[in-house]
Amino acid sequence: MNFKTVYSLLSNDLKKIEKELEQVLDANSPLLKKSSLHYLQAGGKRIRPIFVLLSAKFGKYNLDKVKNVAVSLELIHMASLIHDDVIDDAETRRGRPTVKAKWDNRIAMYTGDYVLARSLELITSLKNVHAHQILSETMVELSIGEIEQIRDKYDFNQTLTNYFRRIKRKTALLIAASCQLGAIAAEVEPIHQEILYKFGYYAGMAFQITDDILDFTSTDEKLGKPAGSDLLQGNITLPVLFALKDESVRSEIIKVNEYMDLEELKQVIASIKNTDAIDKSVAVSDWYLNKAMNLLKELPDKESKSLLNAVVLFIGRRNF
Amino acid sequence: MNFKTVYSLLSNDLKKIEKELEQVLDANSPLLKKSSLHYLQAGGKRIRPIFVLLSAKFGKYNLDKVKNVAVSLELIHMASLIHDDVIDDAETRRGRPTVKAKWDNRIAMYTGDYVLARSLELITSLKNVHAHQILSETMVELSIGEIEQIRDKYDFNQTLTNYFRRIKRKTALLIAASCQLGAIAAEVEPIHQEILYKFGYYAGMAFQITDDILDFTSTDEKLGKPAGSDLLQGNITLPVLFALKDESVRSEIIKVNEYMDLEELKQVIASIKNTDAIDKSVAVSDWYLNKAMNLLKELPDKESKSLLNAVVLFIGRRNF
Repeated sequence: MNFKTVYSLLSNDLKKIEKELEQVLDANSPLLKKSSLHYLQAGGKRIRPIFVLLSAKFGKYNLDKVKNVAVSLELIHMASLIHDDVIDDAETRRGRPTVKAKWDNRIAMYTGDYVLARSLELITSLKNVHAHQILSETMVELSIGEIEQIRDKYDFNQTLTNYFRRIKRKTALLIAASCQLGAIAAEVEPIHQEILYKFGYYAGMAFQITDDILDFTSTDEKLGKPAGSDLLQGNITLPVLFALKDESVRSEIIKVNEYMDLEELKQVIASIKNTDAIDKSVAVSDWYLNKAMNLLKELPDKESKSLLNAVVLFIGRRNF
Repeated sequence: MNFKTVYSLLSNDLKKIEKELEQVLDANSPLLKKSSLHYLQAGGKRIRPIFVLLSAKFGKYNLDKVKNVAVSLELIHMASLIHDDVIDDAETRRGRPTVKAKWDNRIAMYTGDYVLARSLELITSLKNVHAHQILSETMVELSIGEIEQIRDKYDFNQTLTNYFRRIKRKTALLIAASCQLGAIAAEVEPIHQEILYKFGYYAGMAFQITDDILDFTSTDEKLGKPAGSDLLQGNITLPVLFALKDESVRSEIIKVNEYMDLEELKQVIASIKNTDAIDKSVAVSDWYLNKAMNLLKELPDKESKSLLNAVVLFIGRRNF
């Protein structure tokens, strides 16, 4: 089974989620509607809703209940993207922000706040305090992760631990929460809820590491941004940390700064790819994926199990 | 009884809340700790915690339970101030943002997200889904209010309805929620919860209108910013809306823009104060205060009732 099959098997439910996402953001403020739908229409893999749905299938699957959770998780993810963009937007107009640019940033910041608040409102439909606890704790970690990412920018002396802690907070915990909340919504047995949470954590770590690898190995076209953008922005990811161990490549990498031109950057990327950094990173991602797949063995034999397996395999093989 | 007496009667509990606020923000990230404590140490009237405490006193007052609610409400307010500042900060450095300035804005934005998330985490200690619902709905309204405020900036043709809806969302609903959540935490009788919620709404409306009046009538020193700052920033408040009805003053007001120098602004403020705009605004504030005081009559006779009455009187008379 491949990932496309997963999509097509879930397509009816995913369509309903897509519709719900639109409806939730259909605020009576036209400005807010425009700005939040702007992000929604940019699309996405909807990986968090997929984890919610598949985890819920281990219990009493009720789309109406599960849908709200799936939408809520996607909205939290979207809100964090919006807040990331506020800052990026400000940078691209560096030095000469137009009034329009500033206006948009304000709107974007509060749109992020709005999307987040809508997400929290939705999760209360579960009538489960524990669910709210999980979500708010995840949000605390997410915001600490964002701040750590800023702190660690262009810090070429950071450790692997810095990196792993950061991606745990920024990505893995939200995917773990997606699985757990999907399970809670469908009243999955507590022991299986726990397994799904851990599964989500491992899958999430692999998902982010793969993302970080793709920034080097994929094409500008597929990424929708120049390859190596992470490095240019000072985000020191796993491949970079491995490459820094090579003294000659290290001397190239530490010259990277946000003003470096793209041709020079391409040279640095080529040097990184010339080391064993990518292979080593893939090995780490595979380690997490194996952990995730092993956990699946502990779950009851349902169709959803093979679907989750397909998602895990997709994470390791995807090129977008 | 005056407001000082309210403070001194609550001082033990307020001190504990202050301590808790510090502890909650004591993240293990030194950067985050620094940025969030920065706002905390700037102080404030802690009006939301006061409403929480006094409302809780109509039920089974348990400081440990009520404390978390009070801290949570103050944190939401603080998070919204932080996000307001992100934008303002960007403006003061207009045209030439230093790297440090941009860095601080990023940090500030995520600090706001962090403070908000901590607030939500705290409210889950209540183990009451309805409480989360109230809080998340208030947050939705708050963010819509922020966006409306941006939309309505320098719009001299907006209506009184625009203004009232905006301050309802930006201020009154959060104070209403403070009263309601304090009451919920102390298991106050539902009918009294409802009254406290409405009371908080009316008191909150008056609180914001008074704030908007003070921007004209208070001194730079007491405000901690130049008088008339709201108008300069394009926030069209109640006194301005009333003054706009005077044709000659209107022609002065509509010339206000963010680049206007302070001397010229002072002239406009003097003209506004020369109309009946301030008196009319005070009358509206008094109308809300009366509504609030009348609601108090429907509550059981407890010491807290006279304390809430003192708070209401303070709102109408305060000069800071």
